Amino acid sequence: MPRIGIIMGSDSDIPKMKGAAEILDALELPHEATICSAHRTPDRTVQWTREARDRGLSVIIAGAGASAALPGVVAAHTDLPVIGVPLKAWAFDGLDALLSIAQMPPGVPVATMAVNGSKNGALLAARILAITDDDVRRRLAEFSRQQSELVDKKDQDFQKKGFGGES
Amino acid sequence: MPRIGIIMGSDSDIPKMKGAAEILDALELPHEATICSAHRTPDRTVQWTREARDRGLSVIIAGAGASAALPGVVAAHTDLPVIGVPLKAWAFDGLDALLSIAQMPPGVPVATMAVNGSKNGALLAARILAITDDDVRRRLAEFSRQQSELVDKKDQDFQKKGFGGES
Amino acid sequence: MPRIGIIMGSDSDIPKMKGAAEILDALELPHEATICSAHRTPDRTVQWTREARDRGLSVIIAGAGASAALPGVVAAHTDLPVIGVPLKAWAFDGLDALLSIAQMPPGVPVATMAVNGSKNGALLAARILAITDDDVRRRLAEFSRQQSELVDKKDQDFQKKGFGGES
Amino acid sequence: MPRIGIIMGSDSDIPKMKGAAEILDALELPHEATICSAHRTPDRTVQWTREARDRGLSVIIAGAGASAALPGVVAAHTDLPVIGVPLKAWAFDGLDALLSIAQMPPGVPVATMAVNGSKNGALLAARILAITDDDVRRRLAEFSRQQSELVDKKDQDFQKKGFGGES
Amino acid sequence: MPRIGIIMGSDSDIPKMKGAAEILDALELPHEATICSAHRTPDRTVQWTREARDRGLSVIIAGAGASAALPGVVAAHTDLPVIGVPLKAWAFDGLDALLSIAQMPPGVPVATMAVNGSKNGALLAARILAITDDDVRRRLAEFSRQQSELVDKKDQDFQKKGFGGES
Amino acid sequence: MPRIGIIMGSDSDIPKMKGAAEILDALELPHEATICSAHRTPDRTVQWTREARDRGLSVIIAGAGASAALPGVVAAHTDLPVIGVPLKAWAFDGLDALLSIAQMPPGVPVATMAVNGSKNGALLAARILAITDDDVRRRLAEFSRQQSELVDKKDQDFQKKGFGGES
Amino acid sequence: MPRIGIIMGSDSDIPKMKGAAEILDALELPHEATICSAHRTPDRTVQWTREARDRGLSVIIAGAGASAALPGVVAAHTDLPVIGVPLKAWAFDGLDALLSIAQMPPGVPVATMAVNGSKNGALLAARILAITDDDVRRRLAEFSRQQSELVDKKDQDFQKKGFGGES
Amino acid sequence: MPRIGIIMGSDSDIPKMKGAAEILDALELPHEATICSAHRTPDRTVQWTREARDRGLSVIIAGAGASAALPGVVAAHTDLPVIGVPLKAWAFDGLDALLSIAQMPPGVPVATMAVNGSKNGALLAARILAITDDDVRRRLAEFSRQQSELVDKKDQDFQKKGFGGES
Repeated sequence: MPRIGIIMGSDSDIPKMKGAAEILDALELPHEATICSAHRTPDRTVQWTREARDRGLSVIIAGAGASAALPGVVAAHTDLPVIGVPLKAWAFDGLDALLSIAQMPPGVPVATMAVNGSKNGALLAARILAITDDDVRRRLAEFSRQQSELVDKKDQDFQKKGFGGES
Repeated sequence: MPRIGIIMGSDSDIPKMKGAAEILDALELPHEATICSAHRTPDRTVQWTREARDRGLSVIIAGAGASAALPGVVAAHTDLPVIGVPLKAWAFDGLDALLSIAQMPPGVPVATMAVNGSKNGALLAARILAITDDDVRRRLAEFSRQQSELVDKKDQDFQKKGFGGES
Repeated sequence: MPRIGIIMGSDSDIPKMKGAAEILDALELPHEATICSAHRTPDRTVQWTREARDRGLSVIIAGAGASAALPGVVAAHTDLPVIGVPLKAWAFDGLDALLSIAQMPPGVPVATMAVNGSKNGALLAARILAITDDDVRRRLAEFSRQQSELVDKKDQDFQKKGFGGES
Repeated sequence: MPRIGIIMGSDSDIPKMKGAAEILDALELPHEATICSAHRTPDRTVQWTREARDRGLSVIIAGAGASAALPGVVAAHTDLPVIGVPLKAWAFDGLDALLSIAQMPPGVPVATMAVNGSKNGALLAARILAITDDDVRRRLAEFSRQQSELVDKKDQDFQKKGFGGES
Repeated sequence: MPRIGIIMGSDSDIPKMKGAAEILDALELPHEATICSAHRTPDRTVQWTREARDRGLSVIIAGAGASAALPGVVAAHTDLPVIGVPLKAWAFDGLDALLSIAQMPPGVPVATMAVNGSKNGALLAARILAITDDDVRRRLAEFSRQQSELVDKKDQDFQKKGFGGES
Repeated sequence: MPRIGIIMGSDSDIPKMKGAAEILDALELPHEATICSAHRTPDRTVQWTREARDRGLSVIIAGAGASAALPGVVAAHTDLPVIGVPLKAWAFDGLDALLSIAQMPPGVPVATMAVNGSKNGALLAARILAITDDDVRRRLAEFSRQQSELVDKKDQDFQKKGFGGES
Repeated sequence: MPRIGIIMGSDSDIPKMKGAAEILDALELPHEATICSAHRTPDRTVQWTREARDRGLSVIIAGAGASAALPGVVAAHTDLPVIGVPLKAWAFDGLDALLSIAQMPPGVPVATMAVNGSKNGALLAARILAITDDDVRRRLAEFSRQQSELVDKKDQDFQKKGFGGES
Repeated sequence: MPRIGIIMGSDSDIPKMKGAAEILDALELPHEATICSAHRTPDRTVQWTREARDRGLSVIIAGAGASAALPGVVAAHTDLPVIGVPLKAWAFDGLDALLSIAQMPPGVPVATMAVNGSKNGALLAARILAITDDDVRRRLAEFSRQQSELVDKKDQDFQKKGFGGES
């Protein structure tokens, strides 16, 4: 049963949201995903959201660009935590989506990530599950350790090769 | 029977949207208005919008600040023309609302006005009705004429008084 | 007889405004279009605008980039509803045009679309005509239905293929 | 034992973060709070963060203005979910803090709220706890219901008084 | 006979444009001024502009806020040099007007000043006249000398009083 | 003897400023140009500027990107009219240069053009010379006439070919 | 003999730059200050800068608003380290000055502080002197220690009084 | 023994920070560099910073993009002067990093450079060392002289070839 749901407004968002799925796979967190538009399929969006908890979801990750109403609309129809990922669309480098998603009015929170930050959306979902799930917590800790080691490894390479890039 | 509906997300928007009502009154266009939030009362928002045409509405003016999802959500649930008025909220001088309302994805248009531009929202609604209603057109023409005369009158005063403000 | 007029300031705007014409064609709405600059051919712009209603036009869609005075100048010389489409020019991703078109002073409204949002310009024009034209309304409803189905279809494809893009 | 920790960089942030404490009180969620600067008391910040889970905390809400490194620094030293609240400081209406907090690199997520959005920070924390705590969930649902009713009540008042503000 | 014309779109611009008149008075440059709107009195704007050279004008200073089409429209109807002064209106600290006035397309130049920079508009007009008018040049040189002396005088005061402001 | 001087801070600005030289050539206005940096060759910049009038220059066009101090520094050392052209550099699409050049303090005006607007810089210089030089004025009028005709010609082509681009 | 020089373009900058003087006084670092404009008194600016090292200065702190050329001009005429403090002027909350000062071209560095960040300008100057002056370093360390203690003290007060502000 | 340390958060920053190393090499200033992340390897970052002075470092150059906490975190753990270089990441052309690095709170200064301005970071470091090191000062003066000559040389080439680029 999926624990995390990913929703995005258009198939053009698939490559930008893929990072979330990859992180969730790496952390062995079952997830489902759908393409569903706040403006073009509003009823299915509401239905998908309202049934989310019953399908087993604990966290929803919603990616949207430009006007980016999707995360807020989802958050209005569930009391699950909703993570919003602003996506770059055709202008402003994603600032339109960042402001639309972050500037929610008091009462309906959306956890906003960086522009195109779907990976961090997945990691935040994992941190949320890890509060009460020690297995997830262990996998997250291992993930962080690997991440640190990767930076250290890159530094070791850099110490050998320097700015020229050759060893 | 009202021909134009005004919807706004919060009672704090009343003074910013009042200009629309005043213009509509001046143009003798019957209108109704409601406070209804896309995020806090989403179901009533959808219901109000879906029944809009049957209540006689031809145009909807939706005012919203910050994340400003309301105009787009309304436009998603009706095929009436929707005019969005971005309102200044607590930051960014209304740029957040302007981008949220203007940057709608292809398929669901919202006619965006200036920040706090509720008067122009009403005037656009009147222009829309005036396409097929000669009475409205005459009243609009009269309104424009008065507007021009007002500028001319202010220039005449200025010619007398100059930059010092005294005649 | 054309019901909708498209005006744009430069032949470099043709590809950005083409989406409007395509939508209007799909909705079987007769339209005319012209290249006419507010700054370089100001007299022809005024003349085209003043005669618009007599040529049968009900709505004008004006596309412009950068300083983007065209939609406002058109709106100053007609009482038809004017839809402004801010176009990306050589800088600022269209923000200059968006602000120029949206921030109209009280009295002369322009219905601002998204940056490069010419398709929504056409759809808004159709919504306006659909108020009193049930044929247009039916075609619009069909268009919206297809749009929803397209999203649903893309979701069905996605459910098969997932983030990897392969079925 | 507190379940939620609030950390802020300066005593000037107290009034801006107070909304979080009020919401948590209303939802009967025990919380602790501290003033602790990422730049001026970096060691205490790290220590406070590292011991957070052992003190019983499940979620951390970090408020910061301007350069706003605090939420990211906290997120780097814990695997608890961290909610960042960008605060208005002396310039840019909080845009500096919003970008600093939202634009985290992949690997270390921070759940960004609106500028000065401390209330939503608390509500997101409650949603997170509500995943596995039905009592919190009930209180949240009650809170949302009241919120909707408040909007409805304001609409009822508005229907009586109209734009003039008088009944 | 006036040599410089000032045009502004609204009587609310008078205090912001007054600085231009004061500088022109100080430099003994005869000038005229009018309130005339590109959007609300477009015909009078064109007429005023077209007759400008015949009234003796050599330079036009046009102040406008928000959408700020006035300077460009004036520049489209004359071959006199046009100086545009972006004025702060109700949002964005004048950035809307600055972009509207500065981002003119190739072919129709407008000399853009700082936001609310009407004094510099007058000084630029004086520099333009000073090219061929030695009297104006002498008065400008005297003005610049006084300006430098004023800075020097303020520094001398500051040397006595220091940051505390007391001598 | 050159009547107009072009100054730019780097050889990388040559292609961006070339449009000014082309317009001046088309208008038969003799001009000189130099590469001279406000920051890297400050003394030569001052010397070039101070001797400008004696070399016969009536107007200076200064192009600069990023920090863009050059136009202001030039304006501080001459009483000739100075036209500043903000150039795109490595970030912000030229907004840094636009603000640096436009936001001059009262006392030292710079006539700011659009980002990369060197052609309009030349046209403004021509308008300035045309105040007292009827030959220049005639050539400018001819240039404007051609410009209008070009737009008309493009419209005629467009009428034949339509949005498809084929006749 | 002063070791640090403060230069600012206008007497209106005195209150914004006063913080630098206060920090330098607290750190017992002798300093001098002048009002001197890059645009209105350019020659004295250059002279003051060129003689800076001979007057004993090791670091220069230059405050400027709006177009903010002063720090770059100073840096062009000395090889001392120059610290630029962008000051809020009449628009854009200091963004114009921030971009003007930060976006220096390669070759002439300016150490940019926060908008109105004159205190940090003084502290950076002190850090620079502390590299080779152990007395300054000791005073800086003491200053930092007090700063940390102040944060700790404020936290202790807050622990007593909480968000209500009462103990 | 290195006198200057370069720290950057990711190996993707190497090409953007390389300019600093090249300038330091040209000025014969020994330096060390590391890849070390404020968020992913926070402990090593603090350790590297705390031992910096003992390793002989006098100045630290820290490059970071997006949220860009690294320079501030480094500055919090040392009293050496810290130079921050905002780097372009995946959005906003580096504005996020510029604001994060520049808008430091009073007490912990970071000397901010232009976006991607690593060369100027090195030159500022050299100016700082040159205060008390006449050898460095001589090399810096020679570097500046060459830089001026290069501009002069480019102007001489331009005088031969003109805007066409051919001699």
